[in-house]
Amino acid sequence: MMMNKVKNAMSNLVGGMMPHGHHHHHNHHSGGGQTCGPDSLPPRFPYGRPDFLDLSPELLQYSTEHASRPVLTLKRGSRLPWQTGYAEVINAGKSMLNEDQASCEKVFVRKPSGKHRNSTLLEDNGDGTGIPLHFWGVFDGHAGSGAAIMASKLLHRLIRDRLGEICHLLENPGSAPPICLAKNGSPYQAESKKGADKEPEDPDAVSDSTVRFHMEKVVSLESLVMGVIETAFKQMDDLIEKEKASYAISGGCCALAAIHLMGKLYVANAGDSRAIIIRNNEVIPMTNEFTPESERQRLQYLGFLRPELLGNEFTHIEFPRRIQHSELGKKMLYRDHTMTGWAYKTIVEDDLKFPLIYGEGKKARVMATIGVTRGLGDHDLKVYNSNIYIKPFLSCVPEVKVYNLDENKHGPDDVLVMGTDGLWDVTTDREVADAVSAYLSCCDPSDPMRYTLAAQDLLMRSRGVLKERGWRLPNEKLGSGDDITVFIVPLVGHESET
Amino acid sequence: MMMNKVKNAMSNLVGGMMPHGHHHHHNHHSGGGQTCGPDSLPPRFPYGRPDFLDLSPELLQYSTEHASRPVLTLKRGSRLPWQTGYAEVINAGKSMLNEDQASCEKVFVRKPSGKHRNSTLLEDNGDGTGIPLHFWGVFDGHAGSGAAIMASKLLHRLIRDRLGEICHLLENPGSAPPICLAKNGSPYQAESKKGADKEPEDPDAVSDSTVRFHMEKVVSLESLVMGVIETAFKQMDDLIEKEKASYAISGGCCALAAIHLMGKLYVANAGDSRAIIIRNNEVIPMTNEFTPESERQRLQYLGFLRPELLGNEFTHIEFPRRIQHSELGKKMLYRDHTMTGWAYKTIVEDDLKFPLIYGEGKKARVMATIGVTRGLGDHDLKVYNSNIYIKPFLSCVPEVKVYNLDENKHGPDDVLVMGTDGLWDVTTDREVADAVSAYLSCCDPSDPMRYTLAAQDLLMRSRGVLKERGWRLPNEKLGSGDDITVFIVPLVGHESET
Repeated sequence: MMMNKVKNAMSNLVGGMMPHGHHHHHNHHSGGGQTCGPDSLPPRFPYGRPDFLDLSPELLQYSTEHASRPVLTLKRGSRLPWQTGYAEVINAGKSMLNEDQASCEKVFVRKPSGKHRNSTLLEDNGDGTGIPLHFWGVFDGHAGSGAAIMASKLLHRLIRDRLGEICHLLENPGSAPPICLAKNGSPYQAESKKGADKEPEDPDAVSDSTVRFHMEKVVSLESLVMGVIETAFKQMDDLIEKEKASYAISGGCCALAAIHLMGKLYVANAGDSRAIIIRNNEVIPMTNEFTPESERQRLQYLGFLRPELLGNEFTHIEFPRRIQHSELGKKMLYRDHTMTGWAYKTIVEDDLKFPLIYGEGKKARVMATIGVTRGLGDHDLKVYNSNIYIKPFLSCVPEVKVYNLDENKHGPDDVLVMGTDGLWDVTTDREVADAVSAYLSCCDPSDPMRYTLAAQDLLMRSRGVLKERGWRLPNEKLGSGDDITVFIVPLVGHESET
Repeated sequence: MMMNKVKNAMSNLVGGMMPHGHHHHHNHHSGGGQTCGPDSLPPRFPYGRPDFLDLSPELLQYSTEHASRPVLTLKRGSRLPWQTGYAEVINAGKSMLNEDQASCEKVFVRKPSGKHRNSTLLEDNGDGTGIPLHFWGVFDGHAGSGAAIMASKLLHRLIRDRLGEICHLLENPGSAPPICLAKNGSPYQAESKKGADKEPEDPDAVSDSTVRFHMEKVVSLESLVMGVIETAFKQMDDLIEKEKASYAISGGCCALAAIHLMGKLYVANAGDSRAIIIRNNEVIPMTNEFTPESERQRLQYLGFLRPELLGNEFTHIEFPRRIQHSELGKKMLYRDHTMTGWAYKTIVEDDLKFPLIYGEGKKARVMATIGVTRGLGDHDLKVYNSNIYIKPFLSCVPEVKVYNLDENKHGPDDVLVMGTDGLWDVTTDREVADAVSAYLSCCDPSDPMRYTLAAQDLLMRSRGVLKERGWRLPNEKLGSGDDITVFIVPLVGHESET
């Protein structure tokens, strides 16, 4: 049965068609409905695994075996930048295909040239001029692979192109970016004509307008790069929406990206994937997860300020369980968007609506539909059997953390680990650090495969082995039944790269 | 000149009238306008210093000397609960009166009795029954003293009364609070009549409604106390608004409260006051400050979702400086409510409006008016010369942190330090910890005045001494010209109190 499904899916793949409409209600990301694009639209990109895996059609089909869940890794001959290690495994059956995607690229940031000024998203031309940028991305799709695949192909190019627009500022790392640029992007010195602009009628401003006018915040180059990454995620999300007019782009995805530029590592996270740095066997968390629980107050605040987004079906107030009609007039624990603790309120009719945020831990959902609150895509996602859109509650903007690679010393076992939630659901940060450190310490430091082998080891530990009662870890606990994708990026030896 | 002002103010005090309308535009809290209540209304509480200082009229007047800035402390005979130390000093002239207030109380939490059920805010009747609650509050007023004084008189009673409503739950600390209570407040067992309530049409719910119905979050007693404190702050704010119909209650205030109940210390902060625990000379921060900078994204989000609150005068987008009209069409650094980094945008007409958040550090303001974003009061506060209210952008809800006093060991030099921003502006956490630890280590551990003397020492260090160029610290840096209020609360010996 499952094999027939897979074969059908694969034949669709070969024809370039995306399977869609496949839902599994125990999928923690999306138990609700998803309206797919019209069947007549072609996919924006065909389904596949990352190019760097270089899978033959046979291997591509093999990669979808839910029964055996083969762990795929880089081939011995393949090389990713920085000897990055990579491994992936498909889920235990919750979706037909592996909805995780990944990308790893070295590109070059350069000024937009005349002829390319308006043509972003070009392939890197590879002549090696410009500022080198390394990119690692993991994309955990839900309700289809379309958004994850598209993001894995394009996000790094959007970031590269946006950085290209400020290339002349990056080339001058010693001086702070100018606050104002001329239309053509060149630095521009503001005039100080007093009274030229309309000041509000604030006594400070009136008495002291020249001083105030010149009160300027100093913005660092680093926060400019952060802003570029933030706005590129937004641009990626807008592009998915735009191209859905012409292509079938199914689902949505969490996006986790690491960007190395000019000695700094920027880790940007929108979703529930996670990245940690392991340095000298210490864990440095590089991300926070964005889930209905961690973003409860932001979502409740939106529901409070824009109740029409709740479609008269949901209440922004959180209760510890559903309320029965017979409980009207009684007192129940609740919390609103301002609260962290709980208090009692008298139950009124409106409280009988379904709570905007409901469930705990991995089962927490926004409007009973989605278990993650940031990511790309999902423009069509609605509450099951309703016209209520989820997208207004989702943010496509990542949280960006910066790690100064140049200012820290690293050994060959110091790495950045990036993984989708399939990894972290069953393996803690500490366990990951211990497993990776133990594995690498036993490996030949000159073996270019060592980081891929460590990634493979990590995946095996988290997937477990198939026993009578499902996928089990060595300690008999349940292994991860989710898609899992892992990068292990060594941090040594790049300090002098710019 | 200054003396005449003060004498006038004091004669007003004696007559029970609040001075108001006194503004100083370098006051970091409020440089904007404040509409005071009609002059005909009496003050809710007359101006004064905390009761526990027991000041004579002469000393009350002496306390307002801006030229000498006397440091007031507890008298040797006075005792506050836990031998709490206290000191305060008036500002260097930015407002006529000391707008800080403080309270320290031991009260008892008990069930609302029949006759008192609807009469909250009673004085504690002092028969010593009920669960003891210790309370320390510092209230940093701005644009008048009314809100700060009222909060210092009533906030602890509101918290006590709200806790009284859940008294029967507090008396059963072993069991988790019930999710639902009957109308009379007694625990109530929900029926499990399947289908009795309207479930949303969610496939999980339909297939599995009984299980889902009983999926309940477990809420701890601790988070119930947190919820009580959060809602009591809201109630305090509502009460100020309500009573402004009958009384003159000027200005607003930051509120920082510490509550000791059943072995735990709850520290609740709404504003830019700060509390730290010093344990074994280590600093444990117990608060975050809420300012235009720290709450930028929350405020921008509200301005973005409710642009009518900006009155067509302000833009929710932040720029590093004001924009000139001549810069239209050029590119300028900006960030919106989703961003932490900065990016360039092309300037359009709308961007010429004044930024909602403007200025840096202590000079950052909301709508050019107020430098703090949480607190009580300020219901009438408007942008100068406009009809734009600030209050929608202010939150009255504190952030609550919990410190488990019973689970930690403390020596006589381990303390909680609570202070208004006048202290922390010139003295870092570390400096405070070093000063307090050094002072206490030289004091007789049995001297009941030691914590007050340490508070006095801390104040002197932060105020400095008057030199030709103003109030100066020993290192010649500028001392604090603000009102300063400090509690030093010893943590030893209360572990067994309940």
